[in-house]
Amino acid sequence: MTGSTEGQSDIVTAAVLVIGDEILSGRTKDKNIGYIAEYLTMVGIDLREVRVVPDDEAEIIAALNALRARYSYVFTTGGIGPTHDDITADSVAKAFGVPIGEDPRAIALLLERIKPEDLNEARRRMARIPQGAELVLNPVSKAPGFWIGNVIVMAGVPAIMQAMLDDVAPKLVKGRRMLSETVRADAKEGDVAAPLRDIADRFPDVLIGSYPFSDETGFKTNLVLRARDAARLRTATEAVIAMLAAIRVQQA
Amino acid sequence: MTGSTEGQSDIVTAAVLVIGDEILSGRTKDKNIGYIAEYLTMVGIDLREVRVVPDDEAEIIAALNALRARYSYVFTTGGIGPTHDDITADSVAKAFGVPIGEDPRAIALLLERIKPEDLNEARRRMARIPQGAELVLNPVSKAPGFWIGNVIVMAGVPAIMQAMLDDVAPKLVKGRRMLSETVRADAKEGDVAAPLRDIADRFPDVLIGSYPFSDETGFKTNLVLRARDAARLRTATEAVIAMLAAIRVQQA
Repeated sequence: MTGSTEGQSDIVTAAVLVIGDEILSGRTKDKNIGYIAEYLTMVGIDLREVRVVPDDEAEIIAALNALRARYSYVFTTGGIGPTHDDITADSVAKAFGVPIGEDPRAIALLLERIKPEDLNEARRRMARIPQGAELVLNPVSKAPGFWIGNVIVMAGVPAIMQAMLDDVAPKLVKGRRMLSETVRADAKEGDVAAPLRDIADRFPDVLIGSYPFSDETGFKTNLVLRARDAARLRTATEAVIAMLAAIRVQQA
Repeated sequence: MTGSTEGQSDIVTAAVLVIGDEILSGRTKDKNIGYIAEYLTMVGIDLREVRVVPDDEAEIIAALNALRARYSYVFTTGGIGPTHDDITADSVAKAFGVPIGEDPRAIALLLERIKPEDLNEARRRMARIPQGAELVLNPVSKAPGFWIGNVIVMAGVPAIMQAMLDDVAPKLVKGRRMLSETVRADAKEGDVAAPLRDIADRFPDVLIGSYPFSDETGFKTNLVLRARDAARLRTATEAVIAMLAAIRVQQA
C-alpha cells in the first residue's frame, strides 16, 4: 500500500491514535478525531479505527504497534510539548526500536520563534525526534511534529494539528475517494428499514447507513450511501429515492 | 474487580467502544466520548481506553473481546436501531458466545410507544437481546440497551445514551474517586516545565498534566493535578502554586 504510486491504489487506510490523560478524564473534549476523519475522507483515505490511550509509554507503544501493522497510515495527536508528561516522541522511537535525540533541524525551527536565551532544557525536548524521521512543519508555534515509517506524529492543540495535517497531506498516498450521498427521509427509521435492507442487499458495493434524528415534527431519518464508483452510487441513490416515494404513496 | 463490593475496590476501570461508520467517515461528530469520560470520572470509574470501529461484525467482536478482558467495564455506543446496519446486539452475542433472540421484556417496552400494528419486523429487531443480558432502560424512545457480563450496550444518539447511562450508573461498582485541581499558570509551558517535573518527581502518586492554551495576551498553561488522596492532592497543589509564585518573582 505505502509502496504504491499516488492514485494507483484503490484503498488507502488510516487509524488515529489520540494520546492524552485529559481526553480520558473528560477534562478536555477531543476536537481532532472528527476533523481528521472528515479530512481523510475528503482526500481519499479511509479512516478505519480510532484509539484513545493515556500518557503511558507501554500503552502508547502497544497501541501504535497494533495500528501501524494494520493500516496504511497512523496519525497520532498529543504529547509532543516541553513538559514531563509529553512522552509521545520517546514512545514512538521505542515502538520503532530506533534512537532518539535532539534534531538540529528542529532546533533551527524552534529558534525561529524562541530567543536563544529562552531555549531552555525543557523547550529543547520539543526538538527530540526519532532517528530517520522527517519533520512535520508547524506554522503556528514552530515546534515540529514528525513522520516516521507510516506514522505521522502531530500536536494535540487543534489549530496546530490542523496546520500539520495540511503540511503532510500533499505527501500522502491517496486512494480512490469514497463518494457519498445523503437522502433525507421524512419517515421513521422503522418504516424504511425493510425496503432499505432490500436495496442494501441489491447493492453490496454501496455502504448504506441509516441515522435517525428528530425535529419539531417528529422522528426523521438520514440515509447515507457511500461508494467509490459514482455510477453505482447514483443508481443506488435513485433506488432509495424511489423507495421513499413509494412509501409516501402507501401512507397517503 | 467486578466481584468486589461497591466502594471497596480502590480502582475500577472502563473502556468505551464507539461503533459506527458515520464517526469514522467524519459525517457525524462524536459527542459521547467526552460525556462518558466526564461522567465516569465523576462517579469514580477510570476511563482507560476508547476505540472507534466501523459497523463490521469482526471488528466489533475483536475490539469488544480485547477491551472486556482488560477493564472492569466496557460501554458501547451505536448500532442498536432497527436498520440493516445496526449489528451491535448480534455482534455482542457472538463475542460472548451466547444465543440471541427476541426478548419479551424488550417487546413490552417497545409496545409502550409503538402501536401493535406498527411493530413491524424491522422494529422487532430492536428487541433482539443476547441471552442472559439485563435490559438498560431508554426513557426517550423506549428501545432498550442491555448489560451482559461487564459490557453495557447503549444507543448512539446522545440524548438516549445519556439517559441509559443514568439508568445503569447506580448499579455500577465504583472505585475511589480521582480528585483533581486545576492551577492556571500565567506562564508559557516551557517556562514551568523544569520546576513542574521536579514536583512530579516528588509526588509520584499525583498525576500532573500540563495543557497550553492561548488568550489575547499570549500563551498560558493549565496545570492539572489528579490523585485519589485529598491530602496528597492538596500538598502537591500548594507546591505548584508556590513554584509559580517563585517564577513570577524571578521574572519580575
